Amino acid sequence: MYIILVYDINTKRGGKMLKLCRKYLNWIQNSVFEGELTNIQLENLKADANEIMQEGDSLIIFNNKSKKWLNKEIIGQEKSSINNFL
Amino acid sequence: MYIILVYDINTKRGGKMLKLCRKYLNWIQNSVFEGELTNIQLENLKADANEIMQEGDSLIIFNNKSKKWLNKEIIGQEKSSINNFL
Repeated sequence: MYIILVYDINTKRGGKMLKLCRKYLNWIQNSVFEGELTNIQLENLKADANEIMQEGDSLIIFNNKSKKWLNKEIIGQEKSSINNFL
Repeated sequence: MYIILVYDINTKRGGKMLKLCRKYLNWIQNSVFEGELTNIQLENLKADANEIMQEGDSLIIFNNKSKKWLNKEIIGQEKSSINNFL
């Protein structure tokens, strides 16, 4: 399925969460990721995220069977294109 | 149409962008918003955002005709529920 994931995590845990999300998805902006996952991959990602997250942290996952339904428009800097420089 | 909007803006311009996005959409997390907009509303939002944005700023808008296609799962704190306290 196609996933859009956004998180809002205390900076103490930001590095761990970034690393986890990058393992499964493509980073597109700040704390926003997208990609294709199987059900099992999604369950694993959520389980790993739960290990990292603490009180006040937030994770939102949008999902759909296919990317086809979705239009994506990027205005300004395409952050993922500078991914390798970070 | 149904919109998910995420931005990554220099903090100097963050307040203006937050105010603009809240005018059109529902804030759901950090710099993430969702809602229903007409084509004209979306064009106005993009035009207003372009006035605010400068080099290095980024705005990503996902859109689809209907919200029906989309599943949304919130893990941890539902930030929009504390919207009124911010």
